[in-house]
Amino acid sequence: MQSFSYWIGFAGITAFAVTAVLVLAPKGIDLFSAIVLGIITAVGGGTIRDMILDVPVFWAADLNYLWVAIGASLVTFFAESLFTRREIYQLMLYIDGLGAALFAIQTVDKAWAMDFGRPLAPIILGIVTAIGGGLLRDVLSGRQTLLMTRELYATPVLIGCTLYVALLTWVPEHQAAGALCCVAIIFALRAAAIRWDLTVPQWLITKAKAD
Amino acid sequence: MQSFSYWIGFAGITAFAVTAVLVLAPKGIDLFSAIVLGIITAVGGGTIRDMILDVPVFWAADLNYLWVAIGASLVTFFAESLFTRREIYQLMLYIDGLGAALFAIQTVDKAWAMDFGRPLAPIILGIVTAIGGGLLRDVLSGRQTLLMTRELYATPVLIGCTLYVALLTWVPEHQAAGALCCVAIIFALRAAAIRWDLTVPQWLITKAKAD
Amino acid sequence: MQSFSYWIGFAGITAFAVTAVLVLAPKGIDLFSAIVLGIITAVGGGTIRDMILDVPVFWAADLNYLWVAIGASLVTFFAESLFTRREIYQLMLYIDGLGAALFAIQTVDKAWAMDFGRPLAPIILGIVTAIGGGLLRDVLSGRQTLLMTRELYATPVLIGCTLYVALLTWVPEHQAAGALCCVAIIFALRAAAIRWDLTVPQWLITKAKAD
Repeated sequence: MQSFSYWIGFAGITAFAVTAVLVLAPKGIDLFSAIVLGIITAVGGGTIRDMILDVPVFWAADLNYLWVAIGASLVTFFAESLFTRREIYQLMLYIDGLGAALFAIQTVDKAWAMDFGRPLAPIILGIVTAIGGGLLRDVLSGRQTLLMTRELYATPVLIGCTLYVALLTWVPEHQAAGALCCVAIIFALRAAAIRWDLTVPQWLITKAKAD
Repeated sequence: MQSFSYWIGFAGITAFAVTAVLVLAPKGIDLFSAIVLGIITAVGGGTIRDMILDVPVFWAADLNYLWVAIGASLVTFFAESLFTRREIYQLMLYIDGLGAALFAIQTVDKAWAMDFGRPLAPIILGIVTAIGGGLLRDVLSGRQTLLMTRELYATPVLIGCTLYVALLTWVPEHQAAGALCCVAIIFALRAAAIRWDLTVPQWLITKAKAD
Repeated sequence: MQSFSYWIGFAGITAFAVTAVLVLAPKGIDLFSAIVLGIITAVGGGTIRDMILDVPVFWAADLNYLWVAIGASLVTFFAESLFTRREIYQLMLYIDGLGAALFAIQTVDKAWAMDFGRPLAPIILGIVTAIGGGLLRDVLSGRQTLLMTRELYATPVLIGCTLYVALLTWVPEHQAAGALCCVAIIFALRAAAIRWDLTVPQWLITKAKAD
């Protein structure tokens, strides 16, 4: 399982970097900015997590995360037309969702093992890890962050992380199976949101004025 | 005093979260984003402070800060019409100012006790703690940050923190009374700014071109 | 050399703060915001670096960095008309470039000596240190960040840091001379970009849609 999640992790990093370059390309960015923003999107959330946990940042111990992010950004930059093909783009969105699910549950695991502010803080950190990189990308590139859109991205993460914390609290003997289940739940919810264009329901949104 | 300031701290956290949801509600945000931005506004400044001081983040050791921020965001989201009533909103602005004053002086205390870059660095950290959460909220939600407005928010904090550092330097035996006084001074200046709509005077502002 | 780079460091801090106030002045900012944004621009990159390296922030150990940033912001605020004179402004741009070059190479040195994620992570941190403060300034003031422009600012830093890492890997005995050379290379490239208004060439930029 360890080695399996290690490889899914790289698939997630790849998808984060690829989707970053794809959403920014229409604005006209240069190669260097593409790589920088690809890296920041891919490892930004985990970096904020590690700084809050006060542990060494994960990408310094294993440079493969950076190399993969750089490689994915480079390929996307030069082969943009390939990735904007509808099927490939959709595939990337799904892998991005799988990566977010995996990183969130890994983070809950890490924070829980450190006894870091149980039970609430691990959930918060899981969300930070899943959406932090995307928030940094949007802020640095002047895009509206996903917190201001109705996209269903972070809510599945919240649900999955909360379930996993409940599981760690009450049936810790099923941790491994539970982690897999929670990753699957987050991914299923996110995949459903991508597939059927689900958004946050109207009654859960404040009434915008002058809109 | 310790326990008194502990409770005022929660009032401040509450006011930070409530005002965050209130300023963002007109943009039309969903429940989840309201909670995330409420938490970030409430504990963001203190988190940056703790990361710079390299001490454990304060909300991991005492989860009540997070629970209060979540509760306040939730209540505000569903009872928005209550909080937008002029008297309640004004009350929240005053409590927000009291919270900022308290957190700033607490921060100076904390940094001073750690002998962290005396005398200047504690003042800087006091300001970071007081305005950091609001800056993060504005950046993440695409609002103009208070650094670009003429609101008198940070200047009272600067004055109070500077006074408190002077006091710690020259009359350290009056620390407790001095802390109370400096909180009162920051709050009084901020309250005056709210009450009479005071802004930064014209001669302290650069001439905007094409404006 | 140590003491020489110490003094160039302050020239760099000065230039960072001065250029920050100058680019923000046309938006109409107040004295307090000018100082806050001057400080953040001057020490922001190094602060992020130190937090990632998990070492004490450099400005707490030597307050002169903060005093110089405050002084430079103050002088620029009140003597803006002096600094907007073309020759002075150009001079500041060159010193800003020299400061960025120096801080980047110092950072590679620091991270390399700590054996922090060699060989890739020191380069990343060098870039973060050189452009981090400017990115924070632009995000907090609502400007487009340099990652979204075609300015040649970060690319010279990337080239110089990469060369320096190659040198540290293969000819570590020439570290001192190599550091000087790499600072000179970054500065020469940046100076050329300022002098001849060089920008990123068209074929290294994605095609902006609807533009």
